[in-house]
Amino acid sequence: MSSKSSYLGLVNEVDGFPDAATHPEAFAERTSEYSRFMHLNYTVGYIIPIVLDALKDTELSGDWWDIQPGVVRLCGDTVEERTKNMDKTTRRWREAQRFEILSGWRDEIYTVYAPKGSPFFYMERSAHPLFGVLAYGSHMTVYVPATPTTPLRIWVPRRAAGKATYPGMLDNTVAGGMGNGAGPWECIIKEAGEEASLEESLVRAKAKPVGFVSYFYVRHKEAGGEAGLLQPEIEYCYDMAVEAPDSGGPTLKPCDGEVAVHILMDIDEVVANLKNGKFKPNCSAVLLDFFIRHGIITAENEPDYLEIYTRLHRRLEFPTR
Amino acid sequence: MSSKSSYLGLVNEVDGFPDAATHPEAFAERTSEYSRFMHLNYTVGYIIPIVLDALKDTELSGDWWDIQPGVVRLCGDTVEERTKNMDKTTRRWREAQRFEILSGWRDEIYTVYAPKGSPFFYMERSAHPLFGVLAYGSHMTVYVPATPTTPLRIWVPRRAAGKATYPGMLDNTVAGGMGNGAGPWECIIKEAGEEASLEESLVRAKAKPVGFVSYFYVRHKEAGGEAGLLQPEIEYCYDMAVEAPDSGGPTLKPCDGEVAVHILMDIDEVVANLKNGKFKPNCSAVLLDFFIRHGIITAENEPDYLEIYTRLHRRLEFPTR
Repeated sequence: MSSKSSYLGLVNEVDGFPDAATHPEAFAERTSEYSRFMHLNYTVGYIIPIVLDALKDTELSGDWWDIQPGVVRLCGDTVEERTKNMDKTTRRWREAQRFEILSGWRDEIYTVYAPKGSPFFYMERSAHPLFGVLAYGSHMTVYVPATPTTPLRIWVPRRAAGKATYPGMLDNTVAGGMGNGAGPWECIIKEAGEEASLEESLVRAKAKPVGFVSYFYVRHKEAGGEAGLLQPEIEYCYDMAVEAPDSGGPTLKPCDGEVAVHILMDIDEVVANLKNGKFKPNCSAVLLDFFIRHGIITAENEPDYLEIYTRLHRRLEFPTR
Repeated sequence: MSSKSSYLGLVNEVDGFPDAATHPEAFAERTSEYSRFMHLNYTVGYIIPIVLDALKDTELSGDWWDIQPGVVRLCGDTVEERTKNMDKTTRRWREAQRFEILSGWRDEIYTVYAPKGSPFFYMERSAHPLFGVLAYGSHMTVYVPATPTTPLRIWVPRRAAGKATYPGMLDNTVAGGMGNGAGPWECIIKEAGEEASLEESLVRAKAKPVGFVSYFYVRHKEAGGEAGLLQPEIEYCYDMAVEAPDSGGPTLKPCDGEVAVHILMDIDEVVANLKNGKFKPNCSAVLLDFFIRHGIITAENEPDYLEIYTRLHRRLEFPTR
């Protein structure tokens, strides 16, 4: 593993789960430690031992969960039944303070998908890493393009000091988890207003969908809650080029209290902060993708170019939306 | 498998090898039919049965190749020795007309890499699909950005009618295989001059590296030579925005006889030609990546968005440059 101060080190931070194609033995060993969370013959997540133990509590298993060696299934013939069984499970654990991560309960709903993009069940956002199921978000990089006299600049928010996770750290310009119902485009428009006071009409005119990053995050202690929880993610990415404030462009400012301040940062300063670990870890995935698409990181200046870009577009083994 | 007329169908054309993460059983079954071409404990390629039979000819095996059940190794302690043994093998086959694909012998040298980016051996370009080793190229999309009154347009070359492979088909603006020595940037500058008469100074100023596509192509009969040969590839991608010719931008024209004519095509026409199978197959990988990065294909308008983009950035199991 490279250190955090290299770009590949940053990728290792957010994509910590072995790859089945390139590291088949490590992948087999790792997955043998977990139970597969299955639907029909599809894997929708992985259950780590501390969660399996909790599921095995007699009160919970039986009616709510079908637990076999190496395979766990959520009971219920309909989306509604499965959602209810998942809800009873996570609320029971929350009341019993079984998992620290549930102290960050959000009352936001995430969707877990069955094959072909149909919902399999819905669940509380803060609980999804307990089941290793795929989560979705939207991230936008708002930037001022380079001119002959100034380098490219990026609008970088600093998270509020009071935030439960990663207080005071730097973040992507706009970023939000994708709850039940909203698609990635509607999600980014809503978050752009809430987090950066960006006018909806401006975002609709200027934001450009540019793909996504996907990775398999193994949570560190700093993420909040138990270490080792599994969080495979897909983050839809948007670029938005704006004028500098002194040329009539917008000045980004916080709106909902989650952000302390927005700073218009030169690209060199962004890179330095990234390599010094000042950014929230999954921000690096979005920024590195931006750097590669904008020709800032190239095959000529980055020895790990091929690994970085393929790792950030990992094909995950779960059914997707 | 989707039909060619969907974007996912086009991806299936260029990425026809099962994925170890999402289709572990199909991957295991497919690779069990082949021998692994190994170096130390790394897989550098796959050998299909007709090639294994050819290697087993008594004249060839022994000194040049070490053939064990399921595993084939190229003899030689140094890059030079391995290169010589590979060269003797492919030249022998060419003389004996053992493989049709070698009738397209090019006298161009490709590099096959050992771990950590050091050369493992060099070989003739036309022979690389016989060994399922990774090949590299550079592709550039030269385009005229959309204006309020005109849609985005792309410079599309039609291949010369006399070309050995894909005569008369449409192609990426500039595209070339990456031979021994040249990096992707130098490769695209050279090809831009040869294939599109683009001035080196213009390309150096305007071409932007924007990542790469990677996929595992299983060759069809139309590719020339034997069907079923394995061709994993990484194509470095470049975008180059230019003015329209009537606004002072360049008019692309053939230079080396490989291209018949360049057409400045509206995006709708490019899409129609792509879906009608008028483009050379691997062009679709580069164009679909362009469409996603430029917000033409989005999560909202394409149901297979997630699969398309991850398939086009496949992490291949071989050591890379």
